[in-house]
Amino acid sequence: MHGTYKPLWLDNNGDLEVIDQRYLPFEKKTRILHTGADVSQAITDMTVRGAGVIGNVAAFGVYLLAREYAGDKTKITEQAQIIRASRPTAVNLMWAVDRMLQVVAQSQHVIADCKAEAIQICDEDVLRTQDIGRIGCDIIEDIMQRKALTSFNILTHCNAGWLGIVDSGSALAPIYEAQRRGIPIHVWVDETRPRNQGASLTAWELLDAGIQHTIIPDNTGGHLMQQGMVDMVITGADRVALNGDAANKIGTYLKALAAKDNDVPFYIALPTNTFDFACQNGVKDISIEMRSEDEVHMMRGVDEHGLPQIIRITPEGTKAANYGFDVTPARLITAFITEAGCITPNKTAISRLK
Amino acid sequence: MHGTYKPLWLDNNGDLEVIDQRYLPFEKKTRILHTGADVSQAITDMTVRGAGVIGNVAAFGVYLLAREYAGDKTKITEQAQIIRASRPTAVNLMWAVDRMLQVVAQSQHVIADCKAEAIQICDEDVLRTQDIGRIGCDIIEDIMQRKALTSFNILTHCNAGWLGIVDSGSALAPIYEAQRRGIPIHVWVDETRPRNQGASLTAWELLDAGIQHTIIPDNTGGHLMQQGMVDMVITGADRVALNGDAANKIGTYLKALAAKDNDVPFYIALPTNTFDFACQNGVKDISIEMRSEDEVHMMRGVDEHGLPQIIRITPEGTKAANYGFDVTPARLITAFITEAGCITPNKTAISRLK
Repeated sequence: MHGTYKPLWLDNNGDLEVIDQRYLPFEKKTRILHTGADVSQAITDMTVRGAGVIGNVAAFGVYLLAREYAGDKTKITEQAQIIRASRPTAVNLMWAVDRMLQVVAQSQHVIADCKAEAIQICDEDVLRTQDIGRIGCDIIEDIMQRKALTSFNILTHCNAGWLGIVDSGSALAPIYEAQRRGIPIHVWVDETRPRNQGASLTAWELLDAGIQHTIIPDNTGGHLMQQGMVDMVITGADRVALNGDAANKIGTYLKALAAKDNDVPFYIALPTNTFDFACQNGVKDISIEMRSEDEVHMMRGVDEHGLPQIIRITPEGTKAANYGFDVTPARLITAFITEAGCITPNKTAISRLK
Repeated sequence: MHGTYKPLWLDNNGDLEVIDQRYLPFEKKTRILHTGADVSQAITDMTVRGAGVIGNVAAFGVYLLAREYAGDKTKITEQAQIIRASRPTAVNLMWAVDRMLQVVAQSQHVIADCKAEAIQICDEDVLRTQDIGRIGCDIIEDIMQRKALTSFNILTHCNAGWLGIVDSGSALAPIYEAQRRGIPIHVWVDETRPRNQGASLTAWELLDAGIQHTIIPDNTGGHLMQQGMVDMVITGADRVALNGDAANKIGTYLKALAAKDNDVPFYIALPTNTFDFACQNGVKDISIEMRSEDEVHMMRGVDEHGLPQIIRITPEGTKAANYGFDVTPARLITAFITEAGCITPNKTAISRLK
């Protein structure tokens, strides 16, 4: 398992090697995770991020635990809870750990079966994202035809590309597919403060793929939509409730409001394992992660010599608040683009996916 | 003319000295403007910013031109057009230059009269902002009483404090007044990318005044309003059309949408000279300034030794777009807080101010 469009793979020692996304786009570093504790830390400190990849890495985390504890099912199950709790919002994390623990519970050859299951989870994501790409791109072509457009402007928030879910991403999958189909596409990339996943990761992916794009401050999308410069908004999600409310990177809700106000279609692309059927009401029930205020105060980049630097951008003595996600109410979402087709954002349609 | 709460004053040589706001909060530098060309540049490069202060500096710019051209009315009028065009969106700039040119046209003692008029314009702003503070704070007290609140959370965007309009600001004037009245107040300060006027200027002002506040990424306000953590949004404006549509720092529109969606009152505080009675429809007619994309790519701050640094935060080779403002439609605005009272955002009410 090793691909250009996967940010994680097993190395020759059977350890998990991941692209350390904290250093992109300026440095391409990898980090080797040897233990379950390494995996928890890498998820918490956002060495790896993105709902899908968090799930993949967590799955391999259970494999690393299996190896560490020589297949001791009690120990593995106990330690896996730490991985499961390493970030609170992404449902794929819980989903992947639970699926791995089912294998642990039933297996006679825990280490080998865990390894196979983790690889299987990744492989399934690859197929899901390819389906999402095809279904999403069909929607793009529909809109273009209906509006007689010769080119297409998409706005996206955060990073839901291959760095976030192997190997085509969720929100970016239809964009990669559009490129394959030769559709003239341009992407407005929300910077996505405070961690700048748009300006660093999405821009880096699109630059690498040769897809036209422009980075914009998160403040800009409303103006662009008001002026008719956006044909579609598409984002990923970290958890979607049974009622269709969707948790995604903080700021998504504001873009959904602007899309509604300007009749711009607002889509969320996600694999079906991002639905949390146990969560009845997203706005009320999804717990939102509070992260360190240093992510707001400090900024990473490169100086005039191209050397990595971290600077403080706020006055000493001020406080900052850093909510990782917000919840977009179902009423603002046009539809979900999943590997199982286009899903209406309501309980009836979502329940059918169970 | 020199005050703690004015970012501009005449120095002992009769030149205009201004706080160079590009270096706050890390360095308190001033810059001396000798000529009309200096003034145009200082407005364009945002050494000075904020609708009111731009108008004040432009007024003194005409005085500097009067001195430079020894009272030659034709030259002054001609050169003043360059100042008038130094930024396209703030209407106070045009208003102040036009008012100064009326004095030029009618005066027998052009230099002395220009100096007196520029001082007069500043002095009037001081009184206007104090009235805005009182009227705005009355609204705060009304809401607190009606909702039986014991403390009050305000969200603001960009900087509309004394750095932007002497000497109490527009959006911050009611906050300063609330502090004087002993109201327990807390301010959510939007970072305001790409130039970070919130994180640098507003936070610096509030820190200096000892007012409780928390910096948030621009993405955060929707979530806070959805969770009932904001009692009022208040921003300034750079130009308000006759129909009540208001141009303000990019991102204001997104906060207005979130306020509407969550029944949070959304106020715009401004002196009446920010209304552009000649502009019928703000969304359609207000020209939006495009600024350098380097403001998105580059970030200013201090390194671990406290030394000023500028870093690049986006990958080399990506483009960025930098729209300076957006227009919030009148339908999203609860009311305008002006020195002439609280104004309903429609043509009838605004026309009465002419």
